Amino acid sequence: MTNDERWFPNHLKELGEPECLELLAEHHVGRVAYCDDLGPVVLPVNYAVDQGTILIQTSPHSTLASRLRTAPASFQIDEFDEYTQTGWSVLVRGSAAYVDPTDLPADEDRPHTWAEGQRSLHIRITPHEISGRRLLPA
Amino acid sequence: MTNDERWFPNHLKELGEPECLELLAEHHVGRVAYCDDLGPVVLPVNYAVDQGTILIQTSPHSTLASRLRTAPASFQIDEFDEYTQTGWSVLVRGSAAYVDPTDLPADEDRPHTWAEGQRSLHIRITPHEISGRRLLPA
Repeated sequence: MTNDERWFPNHLKELGEPECLELLAEHHVGRVAYCDDLGPVVLPVNYAVDQGTILIQTSPHSTLASRLRTAPASFQIDEFDEYTQTGWSVLVRGSAAYVDPTDLPADEDRPHTWAEGQRSLHIRITPHEISGRRLLPA
Repeated sequence: MTNDERWFPNHLKELGEPECLELLAEHHVGRVAYCDDLGPVVLPVNYAVDQGTILIQTSPHSTLASRLRTAPASFQIDEFDEYTQTGWSVLVRGSAAYVDPTDLPADEDRPHTWAEGQRSLHIRITPHEISGRRLLPA
């Protein structure tokens, strides 16, 4: 099926917060975003959902750590199917802050990072606004 | 294979700009990011690569249109494999501007949007910096 064979384009539907939270809970890789002097930066990270917030893990010496000490931050996940040209996305807008180790959940509920390297610092993104959209077949 | 069965975490490799541009040329969905007063916003969009820049399409009445008239903007693509815990990502940092219709490429080289709706406005993101990373098996 190519674009030319489609008679009707697919349509977008807003997702409610409960569905957004379900999608967040089901996935393990997303993108964290912050703004620096040159504009937005978007980087993939492993994450875990902890009590309605997003937990990520990084090295205390990383740029991410220096940018997300206390800062506005967003977190985004999505999934698309090239063939059906459908998909969904969730955007969490909020603020980031370092997590005190005593406030971390049990080991199995923390983010499990795929990449090597010491990542002893946990950062929590607390949502101010959660929105999402689903692109449905026509 | 679970996390516990892995002896060595996967390792990250920086991608050169030519490989980043190849990956951009091979894909059709990515994420555009901009900053507003509350921080970063990240939204999935269809795109096309045109002479080393990123072309996206939107409605002239959209928030995206009002935010990207002339503004710092980023564009990001990635792909991950949950099973092997590998993947790659490319980040384009640059600036956005409206495209004069006379500067658009031929129809087939423009972005083909999956969602319904009038999207008569083209926005071009001209890169200042292109970077990427690949997460390789251990």
